[in-house]
Amino acid sequence: MEKKIRIGIVGYGNLGRGAEKAVQLNPDMELVGVFTRRNPAEITCSVPVYRENDLLNMTDKIDVLLLCGGSATDLPEQSPAWAKHFHIVDSFDNHSKIPEHFALCDKNAKETNHVALISTGWDPGLFSMMRVLFEAVLPQGQGYTFWGKGVSQGHSDAIRRVAGVLDARQYTIPVESALDQVRAGENPTLSAGDKHKRVCYVVAEPDADKSRIEKEIKTMPGYFADYDTTVHFITAEELRRDHSGIPHGGFVIQTAVTGAENKQKMEFSLALDSNPEFTSSVLAACARAVYRLAEKQDFGAKTILDIPPAYLSAKPAEQLRKEML
Amino acid sequence: MEKKIRIGIVGYGNLGRGAEKAVQLNPDMELVGVFTRRNPAEITCSVPVYRENDLLNMTDKIDVLLLCGGSATDLPEQSPAWAKHFHIVDSFDNHSKIPEHFALCDKNAKETNHVALISTGWDPGLFSMMRVLFEAVLPQGQGYTFWGKGVSQGHSDAIRRVAGVLDARQYTIPVESALDQVRAGENPTLSAGDKHKRVCYVVAEPDADKSRIEKEIKTMPGYFADYDTTVHFITAEELRRDHSGIPHGGFVIQTAVTGAENKQKMEFSLALDSNPEFTSSVLAACARAVYRLAEKQDFGAKTILDIPPAYLSAKPAEQLRKEML
Repeated sequence: MEKKIRIGIVGYGNLGRGAEKAVQLNPDMELVGVFTRRNPAEITCSVPVYRENDLLNMTDKIDVLLLCGGSATDLPEQSPAWAKHFHIVDSFDNHSKIPEHFALCDKNAKETNHVALISTGWDPGLFSMMRVLFEAVLPQGQGYTFWGKGVSQGHSDAIRRVAGVLDARQYTIPVESALDQVRAGENPTLSAGDKHKRVCYVVAEPDADKSRIEKEIKTMPGYFADYDTTVHFITAEELRRDHSGIPHGGFVIQTAVTGAENKQKMEFSLALDSNPEFTSSVLAACARAVYRLAEKQDFGAKTILDIPPAYLSAKPAEQLRKEML
Repeated sequence: MEKKIRIGIVGYGNLGRGAEKAVQLNPDMELVGVFTRRNPAEITCSVPVYRENDLLNMTDKIDVLLLCGGSATDLPEQSPAWAKHFHIVDSFDNHSKIPEHFALCDKNAKETNHVALISTGWDPGLFSMMRVLFEAVLPQGQGYTFWGKGVSQGHSDAIRRVAGVLDARQYTIPVESALDQVRAGENPTLSAGDKHKRVCYVVAEPDADKSRIEKEIKTMPGYFADYDTTVHFITAEELRRDHSGIPHGGFVIQTAVTGAENKQKMEFSLALDSNPEFTSSVLAACARAVYRLAEKQDFGAKTILDIPPAYLSAKPAEQLRKEML
């Protein structure tokens, strides 16, 4: 057995807890510890818990850090900072700021001979990989991404800000007829609202005006106004019982015509009961790719688009060619 | 505009004709010519046609050769031979002989500083990539490959060898109930015959004993005996009218449980009206990856498992990160 890849997890929310389980499923990896800005004594987990700053004294004990913080405030700070000391993987998903995040991580990683694989997971991540692959194979065609069925945290939060709302959960759901049109190769022009509908489960205050709440949700610009939106009022108990999961998923589809009239369709889909547990499974596989890039001294910032699929696998190249090709 | 990638196509059957169209869809590529062992004067195509041996005098005029011959006798000879003079891409699909083919191409390509990307297309090829990717992300899960609906040349040929059969076309079709079981995460144990059924369209001689033919087909060991097989007798005219296409496709599915009980499903599928035209579209995209590997002096034999997705795309890395990630 070769030396195991020593992993550290930074942040212990849903993503960090998923990463803990994902890393432990990979026999070629060893989970050294969880690192937190909270009080370590308050966290119960299967491996030692340290303060995040303890990492500075552990640069020789960890190969790859999985950064499991949020994209709003954690990762913009943590990824460039830790890329100076470790090889890192993050799931930064603020699309418009990816070029800036990439540049910062690239500079810090290159200066210190590290690899920083950013913005991985499933979108950005596997979905990005499929979009690029599909367009490369069928450049004359058209590509579509649909999201759902899944919980949108941002939309759920937006509902909670409506007066009279105690709690809410919003599902983004692909419109089946739009999916069918795309799969049939009709190349429709579709807005986000043509592709998705929004279903909201809302717990209202006992004396709240439900028709006002429903109207405020359905007309909310940016979030709901441009979508087919359904609002269901339920009890707090029903919300907890039926809507506590964090499912998500979606579809990447490319259709094209080759030759005179031959329709060709490529499709990738995910159906996930747990969005964070799947995302962290991708992070774990990416840690292996980062370790291999580092062995080849291919330093700097990377994305999943830069990763040969074989680097993600625990199996040697010869075995992959023999058994999987 | 950067220098175009200069492509040569070796072999002008279904795959070569598909490659001709696919290369011409890519503005960063230039199709230099088609190379054949037949008499060039007998071939009509959109670019100059040369004898295959003329390639020896054109090593400075072509960057990447797309080898579009068959896996039975053409590619085992052509790929190692031409890898001594050019960067090559082939679609060698004789699974059990891939390690040997890889080793031969690797030796010849490395000795002469060439890149030889072998066994690409969709299976082996994109399906292989998905199997490796899916298993790397969800190693605790189980993976399945289904083929079809598609024409199997080997099975069609086997039917044609039955006495009294004039012509035949065989479709391999995934069993819907098996697909459903897999998608539901039931992890069934499935033989090839559990996953696929076989539907045969047969043109019989006028005086042939159709019930004997049907029985001989359905009991043919290896090909049909282990499958749910249906035989339809049709006229030569019906065969030509309704079954002259070469469709294919299939599904790669991986399911797993993460955490306590969260089901996760990854699925990739292809639905192809023309198997060779799609395969040759993959070959064209792979030519770009080969050209880039050569620029990086990363010589030797490769498979699609060694290719970073960005290498397949005509777009620069910055643009991909900005628009596709």
